[in-house]
Amino acid sequence: MRVPPGLTPADFENARKQWEQAVGRDWVFSSDEDVDTYRDSYSPFWHEGDEPVPSAAVAPKTVEQVQEVLRVASSYKIPLWTISTGKNLGYGGSAPLLSGSVVLDLKRMDRVIEVNDKNHYALVEPGVSYFDLYRHIQDRNLKVWIDPPDPGWGSLIGNALERGGGYTPLRDHFDAHCGMEVVLANGEIVRTGMGALPQSQTWQQYRYGFGPYVDGIFSQSNLGVVTKMGFWLYPQPEAFLSGTVGVAKRDDLFPLVENFAYLMNSGIVQATTTVVSPLSYSRDPQLRVLRAQGSTSDVERYAAEKNLPYWSVSLPFYGPAKVIAAQWEYAKQRFRAIPGATFQDGASYRFPLDTDQLAKIVNPVPFGVPSLQTFSIGGPRSQGHMWFSPIIPMSGDAILEAQNVFDQVYQDLGSSSAAPPGFPIWNFFARAFVIIYFFPIEHDIEKNRRNREIFRRLVKTSAEHGWGEYRTHTAFMGDVMDAYSFNDHALLRLHETMKDALDPNGVLSPGKNGIWPKGMRKART
Amino acid sequence: MRVPPGLTPADFENARKQWEQAVGRDWVFSSDEDVDTYRDSYSPFWHEGDEPVPSAAVAPKTVEQVQEVLRVASSYKIPLWTISTGKNLGYGGSAPLLSGSVVLDLKRMDRVIEVNDKNHYALVEPGVSYFDLYRHIQDRNLKVWIDPPDPGWGSLIGNALERGGGYTPLRDHFDAHCGMEVVLANGEIVRTGMGALPQSQTWQQYRYGFGPYVDGIFSQSNLGVVTKMGFWLYPQPEAFLSGTVGVAKRDDLFPLVENFAYLMNSGIVQATTTVVSPLSYSRDPQLRVLRAQGSTSDVERYAAEKNLPYWSVSLPFYGPAKVIAAQWEYAKQRFRAIPGATFQDGASYRFPLDTDQLAKIVNPVPFGVPSLQTFSIGGPRSQGHMWFSPIIPMSGDAILEAQNVFDQVYQDLGSSSAAPPGFPIWNFFARAFVIIYFFPIEHDIEKNRRNREIFRRLVKTSAEHGWGEYRTHTAFMGDVMDAYSFNDHALLRLHETMKDALDPNGVLSPGKNGIWPKGMRKART
Repeated sequence: MRVPPGLTPADFENARKQWEQAVGRDWVFSSDEDVDTYRDSYSPFWHEGDEPVPSAAVAPKTVEQVQEVLRVASSYKIPLWTISTGKNLGYGGSAPLLSGSVVLDLKRMDRVIEVNDKNHYALVEPGVSYFDLYRHIQDRNLKVWIDPPDPGWGSLIGNALERGGGYTPLRDHFDAHCGMEVVLANGEIVRTGMGALPQSQTWQQYRYGFGPYVDGIFSQSNLGVVTKMGFWLYPQPEAFLSGTVGVAKRDDLFPLVENFAYLMNSGIVQATTTVVSPLSYSRDPQLRVLRAQGSTSDVERYAAEKNLPYWSVSLPFYGPAKVIAAQWEYAKQRFRAIPGATFQDGASYRFPLDTDQLAKIVNPVPFGVPSLQTFSIGGPRSQGHMWFSPIIPMSGDAILEAQNVFDQVYQDLGSSSAAPPGFPIWNFFARAFVIIYFFPIEHDIEKNRRNREIFRRLVKTSAEHGWGEYRTHTAFMGDVMDAYSFNDHALLRLHETMKDALDPNGVLSPGKNGIWPKGMRKART
Repeated sequence: MRVPPGLTPADFENARKQWEQAVGRDWVFSSDEDVDTYRDSYSPFWHEGDEPVPSAAVAPKTVEQVQEVLRVASSYKIPLWTISTGKNLGYGGSAPLLSGSVVLDLKRMDRVIEVNDKNHYALVEPGVSYFDLYRHIQDRNLKVWIDPPDPGWGSLIGNALERGGGYTPLRDHFDAHCGMEVVLANGEIVRTGMGALPQSQTWQQYRYGFGPYVDGIFSQSNLGVVTKMGFWLYPQPEAFLSGTVGVAKRDDLFPLVENFAYLMNSGIVQATTTVVSPLSYSRDPQLRVLRAQGSTSDVERYAAEKNLPYWSVSLPFYGPAKVIAAQWEYAKQRFRAIPGATFQDGASYRFPLDTDQLAKIVNPVPFGVPSLQTFSIGGPRSQGHMWFSPIIPMSGDAILEAQNVFDQVYQDLGSSSAAPPGFPIWNFFARAFVIIYFFPIEHDIEKNRRNREIFRRLVKTSAEHGWGEYRTHTAFMGDVMDAYSFNDHALLRLHETMKDALDPNGVLSPGKNGIWPKGMRKART
């Protein structure tokens, strides 16, 4: 039996017994066999001693049980690591950052408390997955969409708290939340926003409430355990269409992105897409030689011969059929200012889709239908993956600079490379781009070490250029937070002041996003 | 000379001298004549002893001076009251909540630091008014709109921090901010979001940064002094049009609002408007009698005879001309499901407007042009005003219930009434309605007392029905916060824990939004 750091086996045994009384014997796990299921299946420390391993797991069913689990943890100063469904793969999965932490597993709290299809919202518990909520809605034939991320088996609350993204107009999952219930380290239940008003009629409809708006401090955070959260849903739209814009020259990227930013920032395009260079997907050796040794115009000539755009962006439109047709027409009108721009109509649907139509769609996620399809796309050649995901400005300059800078890191470190020569640039969030680099995890210690080295170098180099990650794997949370260092880490020190005030015993997810409780703070370096 | 509570005149004199060294002698005000300019011109305590009056004012020019002012205040435990431009009229103006506080006046910090018209944002200081930013943009012929609230002389930062609203698609001013610089009570400068990354390229483009998202705790708050803030701007749209929908029966309100909610929550209508009953504006005595004594169908018959809709809603559309035409067509198609619905085309513009066009528009605020026009609309018969502004659900039921409940309060208190028989219902924020009641302030002690009594009763009654205010006058901040009492005021206690941790000397805006520092907490009751 593993024991949390700083605890005696006897104290841990007592705590476990109290937890068993609180949640039932079946829901406290401490055998290695059980606890190992909480290890990170995609750990970049696979087979290494540095892999953080939990000491136990507790799975409460109710908010009262969460309160009791926290009270026991506080009285024994046992570090917990809160997960919702534990599917945060690529960013640490269900495993804690600090080895020996006890996983506080909320997956049994799986009630869909309310779905309202007149004002289009849901109130759920942390164990509710995108699949769960989707089925709940379908069973009742409600005309609202959820916004799933790529794999749909994760928790709405978990994903939103990690500030994940999806594909429909409600793609920014934290932004689409409205109202929280949080259990603080001292066991107190707080409701935020209008939830602080007993009998509230608008907990899921108006987010700020009165006074300071605190919800944000519980995202990417270890200041509380979120036990309920409201989400705005997208009213089922009439139709969807997509169109693709292609441009021929490298420097057409500048007006391409400028017009794209206009469309996004105006709300004419409201959903997730990518800016890509289709050339970068080509495996033609001739192109590789040209890219390595030729001039930009050589590559442009090659692209023209092969009828490939140098850059392209797909535009997704959701809404009334005539409105989205007009939006696509307007987008074309703007992009026509770029000489040689090409346009291609893409998929077009009317909703609801029937079963046959749905079956033909390889990836239904952009239509509010959760799926695990992404795992078949993600490539079976690695044993797992993690993500490097910096935010860059929504500009052509930034894309070219990021591409050069990150390629150079790979070259400097002699990697033949996980780094794609080009990579899709995503707009999961308003007003900025996010680059999402795939890093394979192998059952190969040397390869993983090399990848960790590249990863850390990318974080540093990225910060030197003014780009920061929006989210990262537990293994690199300290590195990333270190980069957010303005005024001698003033923001981190603010987080630490709040951490000490709200969780003086330091029991909630120590180290999460680089934030450690007082007693463990030297662990930061 | 007035002295802050708990201070000796000698200490206050020393503090003032240190402030004078920090900001210059001209910018510390302590004569009654100077300080009285900071009193609330619309105080509901006009001519009464209860009116809170500042003891002095300090106006720093730079963030370094703010730091110094805070350090001095902390060392002497002098309560400050932070204002940006002091134009929060109807909610307390420039006056403190706690009498004797020193006004920290940021209006000299008036730099427009950056306006970017490619990614459509601005970075400003607290003293920058909507007029200032508008002129800055016009002088440079940039193609971006600001989103002014009714009067444009206030501060962007002040209005956003109070979570005010405007009229264009970026109408939720706090939601449209991106990135802050904050001076904490200890004098430390924190930058939030991507601003925590030195050399950040995306401070105004991606709001969350890494780790807990703290910005919200500085809104409607006394946890820090915001010295810079980024705002997303609206790219100049091609066109605008509005259309009005009318319905004939009282109960048509239900489908009217349901369809309106669909359009809003889908992003088809993105801007601010009102649901009103045009009948309520009528002064026809016949209608008054019918409303008081007749049946609903009597009133409906009257409306039909006079060719007045029972309810109406105007829909504002911004964007490409063909897109917004299609949006209005789609809206009509939906509302046609209500038998007898009528439609009227309203104003229609192409942007930019030339000077002649602009001159003809009575209220240019919805077109991104700041104005003081609202003061000529607001009615000259009172000496000032304050606002009662509860949030209610976006449903017909809620509108009817609120109307009945609030009317009853006025009747119970025997008021002939400031309460309109009907009142516009606003959608300043996504997904919910806000009702904005106008309360006149008179230079008449009895009338003001009566109005305060009605106001407090409205707050209580509102809370009993599950509706809470989104913002309130300093005079009622304690009453409103008291209503947000779930779990024995758990949210307030969370605020107080943070207050004690971040401002242990209790110098920042004591009492703001009901939050008092430790030493003054009994003042709450």
